[in-house]
Amino acid sequence: MSASPKGFRFATVSAGFRKEARPDLALIVSDTPATAAGVFTTNRFQAAPVVVARENLSARPVARAVVINSGQANACTGDEGMTNCRTTLDLVGKACGIPAAEVLPASTGVIGAQLHMDKWREAAPRLAAALGQNTHHDFARAIMTTDAFPKVAERELAIAGTTVRLVGMAKGAGMICPNMATMLSVVLCDAAVTPEAWQRLFLDAVDRTFNRVTVDGDTSTNDTVFGLANGASGVTVEGEDLAKLGEALTDVLARLAYMLVQDGEGATKVMRVKVSGAVDDAEAEAVARTVGHSQLVKTAMYGRDANWGRIVAAVGRSGASFKAEDVVVTLCGVELFRNGQPTDLDFDTLLREPLKGRDVTVDIELGAGTGHYELLASDLTHDYVNCNADYRS
Amino acid sequence: MSASPKGFRFATVSAGFRKEARPDLALIVSDTPATAAGVFTTNRFQAAPVVVARENLSARPVARAVVINSGQANACTGDEGMTNCRTTLDLVGKACGIPAAEVLPASTGVIGAQLHMDKWREAAPRLAAALGQNTHHDFARAIMTTDAFPKVAERELAIAGTTVRLVGMAKGAGMICPNMATMLSVVLCDAAVTPEAWQRLFLDAVDRTFNRVTVDGDTSTNDTVFGLANGASGVTVEGEDLAKLGEALTDVLARLAYMLVQDGEGATKVMRVKVSGAVDDAEAEAVARTVGHSQLVKTAMYGRDANWGRIVAAVGRSGASFKAEDVVVTLCGVELFRNGQPTDLDFDTLLREPLKGRDVTVDIELGAGTGHYELLASDLTHDYVNCNADYRS
Repeated sequence: MSASPKGFRFATVSAGFRKEARPDLALIVSDTPATAAGVFTTNRFQAAPVVVARENLSARPVARAVVINSGQANACTGDEGMTNCRTTLDLVGKACGIPAAEVLPASTGVIGAQLHMDKWREAAPRLAAALGQNTHHDFARAIMTTDAFPKVAERELAIAGTTVRLVGMAKGAGMICPNMATMLSVVLCDAAVTPEAWQRLFLDAVDRTFNRVTVDGDTSTNDTVFGLANGASGVTVEGEDLAKLGEALTDVLARLAYMLVQDGEGATKVMRVKVSGAVDDAEAEAVARTVGHSQLVKTAMYGRDANWGRIVAAVGRSGASFKAEDVVVTLCGVELFRNGQPTDLDFDTLLREPLKGRDVTVDIELGAGTGHYELLASDLTHDYVNCNADYRS
Repeated sequence: MSASPKGFRFATVSAGFRKEARPDLALIVSDTPATAAGVFTTNRFQAAPVVVARENLSARPVARAVVINSGQANACTGDEGMTNCRTTLDLVGKACGIPAAEVLPASTGVIGAQLHMDKWREAAPRLAAALGQNTHHDFARAIMTTDAFPKVAERELAIAGTTVRLVGMAKGAGMICPNMATMLSVVLCDAAVTPEAWQRLFLDAVDRTFNRVTVDGDTSTNDTVFGLANGASGVTVEGEDLAKLGEALTDVLARLAYMLVQDGEGATKVMRVKVSGAVDDAEAEAVARTVGHSQLVKTAMYGRDANWGRIVAAVGRSGASFKAEDVVVTLCGVELFRNGQPTDLDFDTLLREPLKGRDVTVDIELGAGTGHYELLASDLTHDYVNCNADYRS
């Protein structure tokens, strides 16, 4: 296990937001102000912590701390929810000696209920006192909801002869039964980067990774990704080295994104949908999303069924432009469809073993241009329905 | 049971396209040339019968016959599939003494395999000989695939003191395991209507009905709706009476569309998503489709779960314009969400009984304009996954 980036301390405590007794409040503090960036849900209903974090970052792209609670989403909670969110930042900031405006909040859990402020008041001093006693692995564990495993990715790179470290923690595309998916992630880096450069690298990395995974297409009111770079390694990254840092950042987020799909509710497969030859990237994305969201394709993958017809039908209704006879569909390296017809390969036999694995690749070549896109998607399983159809009758 | 429209005869035979011995080839013949219209799948991969039927109708909007086979879709079959389709029309036309150009084909079943032409040659004379020995109920039964029940809707109306009859037959949004959904429908009318007027009434009725139902969002290579009006009642419908006929036609198709959702694979619910107050109808449609396609909403309905959060989240990611605090969500008449927050009603108790029923209404008021849209959607159930995840390993 590689070390965590320098200059960040972690704390987790059980505040009692959840029914079971387990850490449900997690804090990261940077010893010095860190360059900070955030990407948030595009849902029109935005949770209070999303609104507050966005405000803090747009006022000044600098942060000293990130505080995340699980168990309560503080979404659809009106003005009281906004006030409560700001109060939690005051409580945590005061306990740690940090301005509230430099604390970034995120929440995940049941929506529509107000935060238990008494529990926050009780927990904040304990949280501050615990700083340095926990690791980023503890942090990843404390933000879990229905996740089957904590999600951590680490990376080191050498810049100007010195080691720069990155670590990312995430919680899952596994939904919060009985509410909705919330994806939260924090990535930390001990390089010094200008706010403009960090923002650019961060948005680009998120776009190439988290924005290209799907479990069920539902996005939550709380989805949040934060990136903090505090300079504690003593290395300033600029000029040509920025590309190296961007590559490492993308790698960390890509590994977390893969884990999100792997741990999607009830998922048994990680389907990699690779579309090429589209008129442009946007049409390639439309094809990838139509295939990756198709209930029929997702159940076929669960059923280990080399069902080219469902893939072809999804491609055909995606709205993308192409000639039917130019499309080639390949599943796990076996060509299923070409010249408007299934190939004459015995693909049921050829694919029996490959489709038993966790990773399934669907290559779709449209023959209409150079646009391409890649999406990771989960399958649709009995356990997905079990988890989400919680009979109350 | 009301009578069938005058001047149409029906025949069904077992041609052997399916594994089990049952009628799988069905024919309608009109005694006189009928004004004909068709609506077809928008999927870019179009089955041979879709291409041929479209050609026949665009050459001349008149038909004497409709022939439908189940068991083989004749989709993704290349040039040979096109030739075979035209040959089937020759065979049926010759057997019935009708020009092949006035026979409209549709097919449903396994895709990617060529039609069994020997079976068509053997069956065509038997089919012609059986004309008049079967009813429209037999027709509806012969075109079934995985449908749980045949789908028929009838309607009479008086125009100028004379009875005009309509009958519609459909097969289902239940998928053809292990391939894809195919929806086929034929509506017959014994009024005389000009091609222009019939086309307009028919497209409008399809748009208000079949285009507003969804089981899983997947559309097939073969989806087809035909409408034939043969004038055998002796009544010519024109002028103000056209609105009456249009209303009756829409009613017939609406009842069939409801049955398609009711019989969606594994479905236990028919969810009526009614969106109002959108900026325009297109945004209302986007909201209705996002909610109706949401796996989380669909599993919640299956689970009889008054889960306002999932509905709100789907509304929020639909892309429609509105203020979060203006949205009102009502489930089976019980207001769940208003002013950006859940209402304080005890909706779990209030909705326990209503959510046990088959029909569930979701009203979504956006408060942003006058746009509205209504969509019928099925739920997502264990049986859906059972039916579509056919383990081959």
